This record gives sequence, structure tokens and C-alpha cells, in this order.
Amino acid sequence: MPSTIDVSPADSFLVTPRTAVYVDSAASAEVEAIGDYAANMIASRSGAKSQRLAGGAAPDSSITLTLDPSLATLGDEGYDLTITRTRVRIASAAPAGLFHGVQTFRQLLPVAVEHPSAYQRRLIAPAVHVADSPRFAWRGAMLDVARHFLGPDDVKHFIDVMALYKLNRLHLHLSDDQGWRIEIKSWPKLTEVGGQTEIGGGAGGFYTQAQYADIVAYARSRYITVVPEIDMPGHINAALVAYPDLRCNHTAPEPFTRIGGASNTLCVTNDSIYQFVGDVVREIAAAAPTPYFHIGGDEVRSLTKEQYRGFIERVESIVTAAGPRMIGWGEIAPANIHPSTIVQHWNKDSTVLQAERGGKVILSPGPHAYMDMKYDSTTALGLKWAGFINLKTAYDWDPATLIPGIGEQSVLGVEGPLWAETVMTRQDYEYLAFPRLTAIAELGWSSARHHDWENFRRRIGAQGTRLAALGVNFARVPGVDWSW
Amino acid sequence: MPSTIDVSPADSFLVTPRTAVYVDSAASAEVEAIGDYAANMIASRSGAKSQRLAGGAAPDSSITLTLDPSLATLGDEGYDLTITRTRVRIASAAPAGLFHGVQTFRQLLPVAVEHPSAYQRRLIAPAVHVADSPRFAWRGAMLDVARHFLGPDDVKHFIDVMALYKLNRLHLHLSDDQGWRIEIKSWPKLTEVGGQTEIGGGAGGFYTQAQYADIVAYARSRYITVVPEIDMPGHINAALVAYPDLRCNHTAPEPFTRIGGASNTLCVTNDSIYQFVGDVVREIAAAAPTPYFHIGGDEVRSLTKEQYRGFIERVESIVTAAGPRMIGWGEIAPANIHPSTIVQHWNKDSTVLQAERGGKVILSPGPHAYMDMKYDSTTALGLKWAGFINLKTAYDWDPATLIPGIGEQSVLGVEGPLWAETVMTRQDYEYLAFPRLTAIAELGWSSARHHDWENFRRRIGAQGTRLAALGVNFARVPGVDWSW
Repeated sequence: MPSTIDVSPADSFLVTPRTAVYVDSAASAEVEAIGDYAANMIASRSGAKSQRLAGGAAPDSSITLTLDPSLATLGDEGYDLTITRTRVRIASAAPAGLFHGVQTFRQLLPVAVEHPSAYQRRLIAPAVHVADSPRFAWRGAMLDVARHFLGPDDVKHFIDVMALYKLNRLHLHLSDDQGWRIEIKSWPKLTEVGGQTEIGGGAGGFYTQAQYADIVAYARSRYITVVPEIDMPGHINAALVAYPDLRCNHTAPEPFTRIGGASNTLCVTNDSIYQFVGDVVREIAAAAPTPYFHIGGDEVRSLTKEQYRGFIERVESIVTAAGPRMIGWGEIAPANIHPSTIVQHWNKDSTVLQAERGGKVILSPGPHAYMDMKYDSTTALGLKWAGFINLKTAYDWDPATLIPGIGEQSVLGVEGPLWAETVMTRQDYEYLAFPRLTAIAELGWSSARHHDWENFRRRIGAQGTRLAALGVNFARVPGVDWSW
Repeated sequence: MPSTIDVSPADSFLVTPRTAVYVDSAASAEVEAIGDYAANMIASRSGAKSQRLAGGAAPDSSITLTLDPSLATLGDEGYDLTITRTRVRIASAAPAGLFHGVQTFRQLLPVAVEHPSAYQRRLIAPAVHVADSPRFAWRGAMLDVARHFLGPDDVKHFIDVMALYKLNRLHLHLSDDQGWRIEIKSWPKLTEVGGQTEIGGGAGGFYTQAQYADIVAYARSRYITVVPEIDMPGHINAALVAYPDLRCNHTAPEPFTRIGGASNTLCVTNDSIYQFVGDVVREIAAAAPTPYFHIGGDEVRSLTKEQYRGFIERVESIVTAAGPRMIGWGEIAPANIHPSTIVQHWNKDSTVLQAERGGKVILSPGPHAYMDMKYDSTTALGLKWAGFINLKTAYDWDPATLIPGIGEQSVLGVEGPLWAETVMTRQDYEYLAFPRLTAIAELGWSSARHHDWENFRRRIGAQGTRLAALGVNFARVPGVDWSW
């Protein structure tokens, strides 16, 4: 929900064949690309282009995108949107804000905007002024492409839907016991062997570095940062099958293709595994520039406390030397990590220790944010160890007060992880992610003073036809008056 | 709805890890394949196999498929299904009936059966006896892959969903003004040129003969017959762009990529076009054996009555000489066609003439069965020239009384055409097809005495979770209490 909205009830803007999207005459290629995105959005065939505004005011029936440094108080992601009878003006201090402003304009247009072939595609938006900026910098979703592989096109479709809700981080869980999903040229068996398995005995799959870079670039064009995760030192069975020397006993374990976790780990006391870690981190960071690198670190049971902490600290130095900021699950907090490292809370864990160090945390509390939990006892897909999560449970919590000792200033943001033990296709992922991910998006964007379950429930029903027009297999959860 | 159902309320059959599917020891490969299909349906990983029953009765917890000639009164598609606490028995006089019996068993299992990764996949079915057979032999859907192309995998997914509703004909509209979608080796430009366009300026596409044969075989494994249509002598602009000599003036028309129809036709007075027609019919029939060939014949405005009728009669002789039975849209009925030719009613037309000749007709009345019509004024996709078609309108008509002069004995069956002017993706097709295609399926299968809108409306709501689990982007039309 935007920070402020003023509606002029009697007036509206109608997109006509004359309507054009304008960017400033000196606009950067990046702003021009957002203009083209907006031009395509309102056009009924692809390839539409924005135009450069050469001197003077925009003509009637125009949509203009303008960088305006005076809006810096709204931050890079905030924007100012004005719709009148004759024009639409989207302004922001930075391109990300222009993109988000386009998404708000999109939400104000009828559902026909979601489909270029909609017949009688009459696009009309209410006259309105919106000034808006996000509560949190990190508004994420996580796709587990390790338990079951999801192809690049399906990931891109997910990215497109994320953009509609102004989410800005896509965390890719690229490795786990059941599969390794990204090409590492210096360790080719990771994908030749480890990439060929998944839960249930299917064929698995992996992204080449070129495909991964393409996903990262696609996400960037939607103002979404991809966060790669290689889970270690546990949840690593697929890599150990490929390279048994990464284990202390140098023997290959059986491939693990069931639900659950293998107990094997990297041989953290063997110096040579840090060569492996470094190669993996450097190749992924080189394939596509990344400000973050997630090292997992969860659910390690077979190491001593000292062994585990020593590993996390040594990996932190490898990651930060390679450039990215490190992220790990809550279990890493007791290690002697740097305050700039980000800790991601998921279960009863020690995340608060990082807040006490002055560090930042991402909140993905299992009982609220885990999108792989069943909605209720009738949901065929999903697990239930963290409980059933209906839409109210997903929405109705406050990131600033959930965990004693972790206040608003410590919270970088929120993220909904979608573990993939039970999901196999794009439609499966969508069924568990939507509508719950819209609740995560709302928690991440809207200010606490707008938090209101009854209001959210009413507003989300209107997303039904929009998601359906986008071909999203969302769950019509009970308690919402879904538009069909 | 089955013809007869007797339920034993206190009892039920539970699928366990011990449950096996059995076919007779002397079962044909075809029956064994249905057994494997059923085994896969209840298994939680692919590759499950049925077993052959070697002497004696099936053990407890078994599902047996048996050909039983004494059930011939139910026809090839009818079946007898008995579920007790200890076993499931499906019997039919022919394999098609076994397959349909498996579908009814599927519908009696919880929605978890639709997904191999469903967690806690407890499959339990009520004890029941069903004796069932279809009202009409032809229960079809038509996909227009010409206005927008739809790839083979998407067609197969559609076939899988058709099977759930015991539909048995998939009519593929393989050519139109906007594109030509099947490889014809003796006329290569049909796809090299005519296959590269579609509505809206997209890239089009086509099936190679091998891909087409694969679709036909896949459909056959689901007891669905593919019916190829090449629309002529009108709706043929894409072919004329490729081969201008098929026109009387020998000049290529512009490609046509808008909604609407071009007025061009084949030069029916030029003998050489019958070489073209013959080559096309023979190559398609050779690519995959087909009992039917649909020649379109609709909406021809620029020929004289005599020219049009002469063309239809000459094409009928070409088609029947090649082997298949000819089908054409209602406009062909005034030609002097054979009673074995099938006429497909769609609009105010002359279909009744074929009934008067003692021939058979397929009913696809625009105001009831056209799945490309909008549900109501708020539907973004779809057209509206035949009116809005909500679920009640799709369901609540009787094929035996719709058209004066066409009674039950003249009706071969029903078919829902899905013209694709406004649909581009699998999800789009699904949104318009479901739930309306379930109404067509019910009209085609269930006896007239079971026709009851209120009852249908109640039953169809339970299909919501089933369609969602299958990843089908169906429309939650108002007036149905959808399970979510």
C-alpha cells in the first residue's frame, strides 16, 4: 500500500493509440529501458518504444518518466506518481523508483493491461497523486531450485510476477543434498554428476553460467537483485557424490533423493576444501556481478561447535575477499562474523546476536514466511513442520517486533523462502507462493501504520483476475473475496 | 455423471505401498499400457509398472483391469468399476472403457492423486459400484493453433486434462489466414513462409510431421482421436502468401495478422489447386493415420454458390479416396455431399440438411459451445460476437433438441471450439476452456435424464483444487462454490 494517495474521483486518464511514453531528452539508457518497458505494457504488440522529450512540456496523452533529484527523500526506490486527465507523470530520484512507479500505474489500470491480446483493451486509470517509498530495503523471495530443478524461463516468469509487487531480491538456493544447480567450470562434476539428481528420482538439471548470468540480467531489468546461495558445510551431499575428496573419509556417499537431509558435511578440517569454496564463490561472482553471496550454514549436526564456527569465519573471509557481502542462515550468528555480514532468521536460532553486534538481519520466520508450508490440512503440496500458514498468518506479524532484541533498525527486510521438496513445476511453485508472497511484499513495502489485515484481505481479492491473466496458478485461499 | 452409482458408505479402499495394478496374464500391450498409466497415477514417482495376474484371484490391495466381452452392451467406451475395502476392479469390453474407468477411479481419489509430490499422499476412495457409458460418441474440443501457435508440450498438457473429463476428440485447426501450422514436404513454403506469422505480429510456428505424429500418438494413448483441419477454400491467406499461384490472379496477398478474416480463396476454378489439396490431405493422413479429415469450408464470401459447392464435392472425393471420413463446418451441407460426411454446426447454417440426408452432425453452437467467447463483460480475453457464455449457458442446453430437425439419432456428439484470436499461452487457452469444457464433456457423456444445472454447479466446484493441482489456469466463474 502506498505511503500517500490522493484521488480525484471525477477524473481519469485513458490510454489511446496516440498515447506515448516519454523520457527526458538526456535520459540514460537505463531510464530509456524503463520507458520501453512501460511502452510495451500499454501497447498491444511487443517492440513498442519510448520517445525522448525534446524541449518543452510533454503533449497531451503522454506518460513521462523523469529523474528528479529533489525526490531523494523518498530514497532510490521511492517515487511520485501523478495521473491527470491528460497525462501521467512518474518521477523518482533513481531508476528503481521509476520502475516501481510504473508498477503502481499498472496496478491502477484494469486487468486487461496484463495481456497484450485482451480484446477491447481499454486502459483507463483514475486520476491520482501517489507519493510512496518502501519500509524495508530487502523484500525478497527464495526459490529452492535444488530439491527440484526449475528452468530459466520459469524463473523469469516468477521474476515478472515479483516485479508487480515491488519485490527486489530473488534468492536462489542453488545447491543442496539432492542436487547442484550451477555450472562451476573448475569443478565440472558438480553439474555433470551432482546436477543430475533431484527429489523423487527425476533428471534434475542446472544452469550454465551463461544461463545464470542471463537470469541475473533479466532480474536486474526488473530491479530485482539475484542472491546466489551455495549451502555449506551441510546440505552438500550432491557435491560430495561428485567429489568424494571433499569428505573426510574420501568415499562417495549415495545420492540423496528423498525428502529430508543427509548428515554429511564438507571436511572442514581439511585445508583443500577451502580451495573448493573459493573456486565456487569466485566463479559465481565472476559469472554475474553480485553484491551478496549466501553461504547457507544451516542444520549442521555432525561438527563440533568450534569446527562449525571456524568454517563460517574462514568462508566469510573468502567471500568478502571476492567482493560480495556474506549472508547466512541464523545458525551462523554465534560465529565471530563481521557486522556487515547479514544473518537470515528462519527458525528458533541465534539471529539476535547479529543485531547485538549492530548488524542487519533478514526475517524469514518459518511459521509466517515459509511459503512451502501447507495453507491448511487440505493442501496437497507443501510441508507442515512449521505449521499451516494461511494468508492471515503470512501477513499478520510485524517485522520490527517479532523477535525480542531485533528492532526496526536491525531489520534489513523480509523474505519468503519457497523450499521445493514437494513442488515440481512452475504452477506448483506459484500455487504455494501466491497469494502469500503478496503478504511478504506488503510487509516489506508498506509502513507499519498501514498494517491492517481486514484492509489487506479486501484489497488482495482484486489481484485474482490479475494473477489469472498472468497465467499464475495462485491458490484461492478461503476468507478472501477473490475476483475471478 | 455416471449412468449408475451405488455407494457403500461405510467402506473405502486405501492405496498403500503394497497396492499393485494388475492386468490379465494374456493382456495385450494396449491394456498393459493402461495398467502402467494407472500404476503411475497412484505411484509417487514415475516409471511404475502394472503386473500380470498369473492364475487365481488378485491379492488384497489390488487394482485389476479386465477386458470382459459380457460388457459389450456398455459399448467400447463404457466400463464397470467396483471398489471394495480390499480391491478395485475395472472392467470393459474394450480398452477405451478401461481407460475411462481409470479416470472415474481417479476422480474418486482425493486431489493428492493429481500430484506425485503431494506430501502425505494418502489415496483413499469410497467403496462404490459404477456402471457407465457415454451418451454420444463424439466429445470434443478444438484448439485453434493458427491464430496463435501453441507448442506440442502445451497441446499434450491440454490432452491430459481432456482425458480427466473423458473427452475423446481433439480437433486441431491447423491453418487459417494468419498462419499455417503443419509441415507439408511437397509444399515446403507453407511452413517456411506461412508458418512464420500469427495475430499480433509474433513469430508463429508449426509442427513438423514428426511432432504432429507424436501429438497424435500421445492423444491416442489417452483415448483421444486427433482430428486435423485444413480450412479451405477460404481462411487460407497464409497459404496464398506462400504460393501465390493458388490464387486466380497469381499474386501474393499481404500477410494477414489482425483479428478478422481475409476475403481471399483458393482459385477453385483452376484444376491445379486440387493437386495442392490432394498433396496436403495425403501427407497429413500419411504422417499419422486419421479416421477423419476436416476441410473447414466456413465463411466463404467471394465465390458463387456453384463454385463453392463444386469445390466441396471435389474435395470430398479427394479426402475419401485418401481414406478418412470428411468433416466440414455447417456451410458445406448444401453441397451434394455423402451421408457419411460429418457436418459441424457452429452458427445459423444449413447443418439440418445433412440430418435430412441421414448423416451425422457435430454440435458446436456458437452461443453455447464457443469457448473463445468472454464469460461476461469483465473477461479480458475472448471475443463476444456470439454473446457472453457463462458456465450455465455452456451447460444448459440439450444437443437433441437444440436445432429443429436434428434429433438425438442425428447427433454424433458435441465439441467446444477454442478460437485463438486473443489467446497466446497455455494459460490463456486454459482460462477460456475451463470450466466451460467440463460442461461440454458432461453434455457429451451424461444421459439427458441426469441433466441438472444445480447439480452440475455443485459438482463442478470440487474440480477447483483438482485443476489447480494440475496447474490449470481455470476461471473461477461466479456462481460456483469453488474448492480452492
